[in-house]
Amino acid sequence: MNPLTVCFTNLHRFTSDAFRQVDLAPADATTGADVLVTTDAWGVFTHGTKALPGYLRRLRAGGLRARGQPRIVAEGGAWATVDGDSSLGMVTSVFAMQIAITKARQQGIACVGVRNSCHFGAAGYYSWLAAREGLIGLSMANDIPSVAAPGSRGPVTGSNPISYAIPAGRHRPILLDMATATVAGGKVYAAKERGEPIPIHWLLGADGKPTTNPSGFPDTGALTPAAGHKGYGLALLIETLSGILSGAEFTWRVRSWTFDDPAVPTNHGAAFLAIDPGALMPLAQFTRRVEELVDEIHAAPRAEGVDRLYVPGEMEWERHDRSLKEGIRLPGDVVERLQSAAELTGLDLNISFPSKVQ
Amino acid sequence: MNPLTVCFTNLHRFTSDAFRQVDLAPADATTGADVLVTTDAWGVFTHGTKALPGYLRRLRAGGLRARGQPRIVAEGGAWATVDGDSSLGMVTSVFAMQIAITKARQQGIACVGVRNSCHFGAAGYYSWLAAREGLIGLSMANDIPSVAAPGSRGPVTGSNPISYAIPAGRHRPILLDMATATVAGGKVYAAKERGEPIPIHWLLGADGKPTTNPSGFPDTGALTPAAGHKGYGLALLIETLSGILSGAEFTWRVRSWTFDDPAVPTNHGAAFLAIDPGALMPLAQFTRRVEELVDEIHAAPRAEGVDRLYVPGEMEWERHDRSLKEGIRLPGDVVERLQSAAELTGLDLNISFPSKVQ
Repeated sequence: MNPLTVCFTNLHRFTSDAFRQVDLAPADATTGADVLVTTDAWGVFTHGTKALPGYLRRLRAGGLRARGQPRIVAEGGAWATVDGDSSLGMVTSVFAMQIAITKARQQGIACVGVRNSCHFGAAGYYSWLAAREGLIGLSMANDIPSVAAPGSRGPVTGSNPISYAIPAGRHRPILLDMATATVAGGKVYAAKERGEPIPIHWLLGADGKPTTNPSGFPDTGALTPAAGHKGYGLALLIETLSGILSGAEFTWRVRSWTFDDPAVPTNHGAAFLAIDPGALMPLAQFTRRVEELVDEIHAAPRAEGVDRLYVPGEMEWERHDRSLKEGIRLPGDVVERLQSAAELTGLDLNISFPSKVQ
Repeated sequence: MNPLTVCFTNLHRFTSDAFRQVDLAPADATTGADVLVTTDAWGVFTHGTKALPGYLRRLRAGGLRARGQPRIVAEGGAWATVDGDSSLGMVTSVFAMQIAITKARQQGIACVGVRNSCHFGAAGYYSWLAAREGLIGLSMANDIPSVAAPGSRGPVTGSNPISYAIPAGRHRPILLDMATATVAGGKVYAAKERGEPIPIHWLLGADGKPTTNPSGFPDTGALTPAAGHKGYGLALLIETLSGILSGAEFTWRVRSWTFDDPAVPTNHGAAFLAIDPGALMPLAQFTRRVEELVDEIHAAPRAEGVDRLYVPGEMEWERHDRSLKEGIRLPGDVVERLQSAAELTGLDLNISFPSKVQ
């Protein structure tokens, strides 16, 4: 399918309506649309509305509970454990980060673990929720194994993403969202769907050797860990905080939200941390120092042929602003999935830019 | 100089005596020796007693204060800021992690930022202090810029290390200690001292191009960030938590503990986090789940020619046990530095294995 330039507002309305069609409460439908459409606006199309039909199928089948209610099951001064009640991962994750923010304001730092969750989309969204309120946010989650350990044949850990966001005063928040695999599995799926080869260092085949052919994944083969033992090590920390410490499932006991029975909850785990710089020092002093760091990087000498040095998130924020102004240019594979979502829900896919409906 | 097999106890005594010769209080001298000799026992020779003469020179010159006293300058429920008073980095770091442990026991998680510190050796040591007491520990620090950002010519961030340790029941703690550069600068210095070439992906030369020649570093060139933008992004998070949020110096305003005037404090920053799993769930349940994770990795299929899969720290713990039993096999460059330390302090370098002095 061809790429399509769509209107943020229309895509948000379509996504929210689609969630309501499968019985999500209006507030939860809006939360889901907020996360997915913001992610598309950042240009992170592997983790945005592309996943909508997958979530809708799970919501229909009951593996995701449309009327699930995330709740705190245990808490202390600077921590809480949240049971997601198999709600949409975005709903549980926003709920959890808001608790982390509230507790961090009281204690300086707080950590909220999540069980009975599902795929939560782009980790960076939840970190940004904290940064938007002047806090440093960190978000991470586990997933079914898809990534090799150094020396393994086949996957050992999930691609376990981690993200952070730091408020940066007059600059947009610094925002990093990374898989601990060399690349997120979504990038391999996207290449597979487009029938394109992948770079040689992304994937190991069934024999444990590097391959440029994505077609066997994920049935066979495994993603490579980012920077070898470093990405592998970070993945185990994330597995521990997200899966083990929260009481969620971990590694092979997590179910795939795309491939496994949509009627059965996946029980992903996640963890959300917030740190309140304003509790530790005057917030203006903190943000002034972050501004200086960003300015220093922008002014640093560049290699030949390089126009700019970026801080993490800067490219995404620029795409975001352009998306609002000029529409979001959705790749063909995303448009195709949105067509599926329209068919699943009986909605019209009326999302073009400029908007024809006001 | 030739490698030398030395006795843990003798090396510890020598290191501690050397610190006392430059007026460290006995408890602080012991702390310094604990950190450095344990690091050597792990086989991490770039960050162990090799640095001793450098610390001694700073202690003599006053940039490190032999009788400095780290203290809490601000604190809240789950956080504290420590002023290291330009004490030996190991002394300040142990002090700070102990506060993080105490506060995490009360609040579930705690974060302690450190200013007026110096090079702290191996980050993993402090994380392990937490794991030894049943907590998850994280340690990180900033340093003078030595690592490129994607597209930069020359360094932008420090090699900003991060480490964690997780108590693992009947297994030794999972323990990762990594630079956010592809490799720590110490590995490039070690190759430079040995006159050996380095792998092509470690270093960029003055022109911003990859080089196998370590001889220009650190005067020109820059280390590569691990996994490109991912290592760069993590380095900025570490810079923020260690340098900015603690009120320490950051990036170019940190001084080099090896190259800059030893009479002037370096004002490195660091951050220490502890999470108490026993506050969040029964500790035995937590460690049983971590044991299952480790067992699962040990049992995972291996690529052809691979004998074992390791969890982070496992190699270090095996070297540690062998070091205690069979002595620590110090590389020649470390032996040479210990000779310098002996000359600086007038002590005999009586550290051979098996021990001749009882």
